[in-house]
Amino acid sequence: MKLFRNARIFTPIDDGRPAAGILQARLIRHDQGALLTTAGDIARVGDEKAVLSGLSAYAVHQEIDCGGRAMVPGFVDPHTHICFAERREAEFELRLSGAPYLEILAAGGGILSSARAVREAGEAALFERTAALAASAMAHGSTTIEIKSGYGLDTDTELMMLRVIRRVGRRLPLDVVPTFLGAHAVPPEYAGRTDDFVEMIVSDMIPAVRLQGIARFCDVFCEKGVFSVEQSRRILAAGAAAGMGAKIHADEVNDLGGAALAAELSAVSGDHLLAVSDVNIARMAEAGVVATLLPATAYSLKKPYARARAMIENGLPVAIATDCNPGSSFTESMPFVIGLAVMNMHMTPAEALVAATLNAACAIGMSGRTGSLTPGKQADFLLLDGESPAILAYHVGVSPVAAVYKRGERVAAAGSLEREDYR
Amino acid sequence: MKLFRNARIFTPIDDGRPAAGILQARLIRHDQGALLTTAGDIARVGDEKAVLSGLSAYAVHQEIDCGGRAMVPGFVDPHTHICFAERREAEFELRLSGAPYLEILAAGGGILSSARAVREAGEAALFERTAALAASAMAHGSTTIEIKSGYGLDTDTELMMLRVIRRVGRRLPLDVVPTFLGAHAVPPEYAGRTDDFVEMIVSDMIPAVRLQGIARFCDVFCEKGVFSVEQSRRILAAGAAAGMGAKIHADEVNDLGGAALAAELSAVSGDHLLAVSDVNIARMAEAGVVATLLPATAYSLKKPYARARAMIENGLPVAIATDCNPGSSFTESMPFVIGLAVMNMHMTPAEALVAATLNAACAIGMSGRTGSLTPGKQADFLLLDGESPAILAYHVGVSPVAAVYKRGERVAAAGSLEREDYR
Repeated sequence: MKLFRNARIFTPIDDGRPAAGILQARLIRHDQGALLTTAGDIARVGDEKAVLSGLSAYAVHQEIDCGGRAMVPGFVDPHTHICFAERREAEFELRLSGAPYLEILAAGGGILSSARAVREAGEAALFERTAALAASAMAHGSTTIEIKSGYGLDTDTELMMLRVIRRVGRRLPLDVVPTFLGAHAVPPEYAGRTDDFVEMIVSDMIPAVRLQGIARFCDVFCEKGVFSVEQSRRILAAGAAAGMGAKIHADEVNDLGGAALAAELSAVSGDHLLAVSDVNIARMAEAGVVATLLPATAYSLKKPYARARAMIENGLPVAIATDCNPGSSFTESMPFVIGLAVMNMHMTPAEALVAATLNAACAIGMSGRTGSLTPGKQADFLLLDGESPAILAYHVGVSPVAAVYKRGERVAAAGSLEREDYR
Repeated sequence: MKLFRNARIFTPIDDGRPAAGILQARLIRHDQGALLTTAGDIARVGDEKAVLSGLSAYAVHQEIDCGGRAMVPGFVDPHTHICFAERREAEFELRLSGAPYLEILAAGGGILSSARAVREAGEAALFERTAALAASAMAHGSTTIEIKSGYGLDTDTELMMLRVIRRVGRRLPLDVVPTFLGAHAVPPEYAGRTDDFVEMIVSDMIPAVRLQGIARFCDVFCEKGVFSVEQSRRILAAGAAAGMGAKIHADEVNDLGGAALAAELSAVSGDHLLAVSDVNIARMAEAGVVATLLPATAYSLKKPYARARAMIENGLPVAIATDCNPGSSFTESMPFVIGLAVMNMHMTPAEALVAATLNAACAIGMSGRTGSLTPGKQADFLLLDGESPAILAYHVGVSPVAAVYKRGERVAAAGSLEREDYR
């Protein structure tokens, strides 16, 4: 067993559900804390005295002094599109100069340009690029990450993306949750025939995805001009019949009914939600849906932020994610997202931490294994270069993650921490 | 000589003055560029063919392929307070919960708590902490950095800070420009007797600082409730008589006349400027003062940003800086500041780069040695993990700085670039 001592431990309490209400009430701290791991899982955690009580000295084969640093659960990033082949740096400059997204899309940019790039890159190149970005996410503290397909937009390329996503989780010491997002955009060959594309998704893609057996969730971009509520319902129902849980890109631009649909279907999460109404906040809360908010997207698109406080105060569990993608939010850093949640969505540092760990794990069905420092869960945790989770918002623009542990093993560390001795 | 080939070079043109007007017009690019160094300086730079023309193969003892990456001048951070002993993480949480700064100050927080910590830490500990933060700034691309005293507030401690600041520049491969900021706050022993403190600065501190001979500039926090325009004028005049150029924390909260004073004294820079008037923008431009803007401070304090576009369009040269300090802006990352300048102050990526290099160098009297890729200047440059300076704003929340060169030597690099071979 491995013993981590002299840590300031901060962790959500896991009572089997995502935390709702004032999230900081769900965070417990141990100022002189310790954590004991066995075979990659958490054996004991809490005040050092309690953890050491009755513990045979022979049982501990390694002891690590954490130097008083804050210890928190590894971040869970519950919404990413990091499986892409090409950045869109030039398009970013176009957008800055005022070109509207729909114009960029019409000129072959946006999601469709990423789809072309994925088709052209091929499986090996796509894997290398995705793995590199996932490794950077890990170095920034993510120990579990959801990755969506959706730049394939034909059956073969969607299946290829899902294979690449699975391989990333096998190559890296990282839990990867694959989500099928065939309904990310309407490809050029179906322009003006969205219903036909939906029919193809339902009758061709989803059966093939089921047969391949990789995807855990089915997601839809439910938005005006993309997929309607009715089309989304049809796709998600087919996904559910194929064993995939439902997730929805909902009410990002318009209050279209995506959040209401998430509630109706008891989706595991409704994501974006910039335009969600009070009524639908209440519906989502009642249905046990997690609201996954994406502040780096609002930052990158210079949009208003989602109403995190209204959700928290109305009992809707809030998770936060990077939305990492080459168009609207090119960041793999959960510390940056936590900083934005605090500075621009007015969450407390404690609330942002709960949103980035336990609630994020709930948003991708992983809370049984990770998302809190709880005996029996995986020993996925971080040491921060600070005394509390506040450091994540206080030390801005850099990563205060000093060391990353996945299943009890160190998988990344800041350059200055060469040896596993943090005094 | 060392030859860096296959780089996309972006550099301001240096015509001996800071760039004014639309700054991106001052940026030149070479899509297939090369840079040749000799003894740490730039020998040639430009299109690869022109650089190689007439060059004897024997003259080049090392050749580095930059893999098509963007190459830009090393960042110059012209306004920092990184010489401090203690972070103020708890105060940050207080501030988030709504406590106003004046209340925090009255409770012994703010600058005064940093002053206490510096006095208590002693020279050795202060040096180690400052050097660690400076090393992190270098890893984020800063190759030249201004550091202010100002947490001493008595003569001995101010002199100690200036010694520490000089030692940081000797220990690290980093040009450090020391600024004397005795007039940063009124210490408790002078509470209610600001004029007496000013008298002490002028008659005791400044002669001692002159004798010690380390400080290059003299700075004042000219603000309502801190130092008035008259007090600031007196201190800066004494500083000038002691051989120190003038810098001013001007019009951060109120349009008090700090910017006008900067123009009157032809200060090398006026800094902050959130509340500066149009009239004083014009005055500063006419007097050749550089406007040093600090967007990470606005971000951290949730304030409106300085009017960068109005300044640029009215011919006032704009520089940007981190303002790194433990209270209002705890970041040492110039990429983060560049990102904020683009996203929140509406500068173009090219303008933000000029502001972070040539104009920043002008703001601390270093443009003769650095701030642009110009033959005869030091070979201070960066390779970015992207094709253009846009990557600095596009890839948010992380550092796209792939490798840092100071005087032609690699001094920092991203983890994945172990070998100096970037193909």
